[in-house]
Amino acid sequence: MSHIVITGANGFVGQGLVKRLLAQSDHTLTLIDQKFDNQPLDPRVRCIEGSFGDAAVLDAALKIPVDTVFHLASVPGALAEREPALGYQVNLQATIALAHRLAARPRPVRLVFASSVAVYGALGTEAVHEDQPARPALSYGAHKLMAEIELADLSRRGTLDAVSLRLPGIVARPPSESGHGSAFMSLVMHRIAAGQPYVCPVGQKATAWWMSLRCCVDNLLHAATMSTAAAPSARVWQLPVLHLSIREVLDALTWRYGPQRRELISFSPDERIEALFGRMPPLHTPAALAAGFRHDDGVDQLIVAALQTSG
Amino acid sequence: MSHIVITGANGFVGQGLVKRLLAQSDHTLTLIDQKFDNQPLDPRVRCIEGSFGDAAVLDAALKIPVDTVFHLASVPGALAEREPALGYQVNLQATIALAHRLAARPRPVRLVFASSVAVYGALGTEAVHEDQPARPALSYGAHKLMAEIELADLSRRGTLDAVSLRLPGIVARPPSESGHGSAFMSLVMHRIAAGQPYVCPVGQKATAWWMSLRCCVDNLLHAATMSTAAAPSARVWQLPVLHLSIREVLDALTWRYGPQRRELISFSPDERIEALFGRMPPLHTPAALAAGFRHDDGVDQLIVAALQTSG
Repeated sequence: MSHIVITGANGFVGQGLVKRLLAQSDHTLTLIDQKFDNQPLDPRVRCIEGSFGDAAVLDAALKIPVDTVFHLASVPGALAEREPALGYQVNLQATIALAHRLAARPRPVRLVFASSVAVYGALGTEAVHEDQPARPALSYGAHKLMAEIELADLSRRGTLDAVSLRLPGIVARPPSESGHGSAFMSLVMHRIAAGQPYVCPVGQKATAWWMSLRCCVDNLLHAATMSTAAAPSARVWQLPVLHLSIREVLDALTWRYGPQRRELISFSPDERIEALFGRMPPLHTPAALAAGFRHDDGVDQLIVAALQTSG
Repeated sequence: MSHIVITGANGFVGQGLVKRLLAQSDHTLTLIDQKFDNQPLDPRVRCIEGSFGDAAVLDAALKIPVDTVFHLASVPGALAEREPALGYQVNLQATIALAHRLAARPRPVRLVFASSVAVYGALGTEAVHEDQPARPALSYGAHKLMAEIELADLSRRGTLDAVSLRLPGIVARPPSESGHGSAFMSLVMHRIAAGQPYVCPVGQKATAWWMSLRCCVDNLLHAATMSTAAAPSARVWQLPVLHLSIREVLDALTWRYGPQRRELISFSPDERIEALFGRMPPLHTPAALAAGFRHDDGVDQLIVAALQTSG
């Protein structure tokens, strides 16, 4: 039995991960988040309300020797852009402080870090490889990239055992969640499933990188247990994704929910959102696939998994 | 007349930059360093002894509105590797704090940041381009790279006007300077010039990227005054360099000082130093050249410039 700490445990990805861990193992879980909507009533779970950037919160969380940390907490991109001091403090400073805190422990801790495809910034139209140079276009991506570099350096020193995963947009986030510029990816699914109208801020031809929560949790769990003996020095894996246009996703939703639902979606493209989130080129990730990471198998499987209520 | 602040002003590059600025302009200079060997006796110069990471030092330096900051201070690579907390504090934290401090001023300040080719880590044998992905192999390079990313993000936000220059080994550093793993590049020149024996920690075939202090100062001054309107979003320029083997440098020194001096140099290659500093492939920098940056014209010019006592 091992002790697992999860930051951002009340978030969309965090809740999916917690459910899966409780369903399939006997780990002890310490969950950290600002607040919890529904604290799991389970003797294996401790919930700590507060910021992972607060030393007292980490003191409490790390009182029990820790084996694995999933670091999921962050200030989302749009919010970090509006409140740069907050984004800097949480996404960079507190993340590095957490890593240094773990690095000071006697035995290297496996830290699974939820990085983001936002590290790349705007991409061209050509297919890209997982070695694509990172040139972030928002502070969120810049700070995720900087954190990746520090985690890799601590791992090189042998004081930490980090795995950074570059996550695409995960679907389908709860409709209430805000702060993510890529929210349209989830909303287009929810609104059609619910039979509600939606004005999509990118056009039908807009292409994005997609992953269901279930698939994301599979990848996080793999990152927690895989061998890092032969990991690349950057300790970063670009997760495999589905590369789909809004039209392809709508086609699959139409097949599932019927053609009249499609009429609910209208389009009012926002150039800035399209440029940042709606022009993703094809992505090839042979190294990540060889290392055991996976994508949803196809658009139909993506939608079925995405509209499940848990990961 | 403008007010220029220089951190690390008592260092090898800093002293060269200060001499040049005093020789050719009427700027007001505020120099920051832990200590000064010889404070310039010039009414245009203020020296502040202390760390640029100390808020009181920055308060004093920035009391006069500042136009340009040359940020040269850093903990060298080998020392940062031995004392990781010190390297982290100075090379990352204090550097970012300085940038944020400047970004809070009403008008964007031009910040010229001395980054390093250490950001690349080990390279292969193939020629590389200035867009070569950065995969630092030491904390020094990791922190330089992270600082570059933060400066670019502040520049994107319009609160700072940063130019990061990736500097190669600058020659010929004073023989007394320590902490740089690439010290052999300077020592081989000094020892032959002085007629003293030297055991070189890389072989004759080892290749490095070379630049004289004079050329480095030229490039720093260009970075301070160039237009950044069309700068790449990363705000980074890989400086053009001479790509020379130790043998080529020895040949040129022999031509200058006579063949008997060459006998003074023996070789005891250290695998780690060779891997980090002695296997640099050819480097092509068409964008930097087009932007007005330059290298020493050839090995003979490099040596003449390198063995001058000033930049």
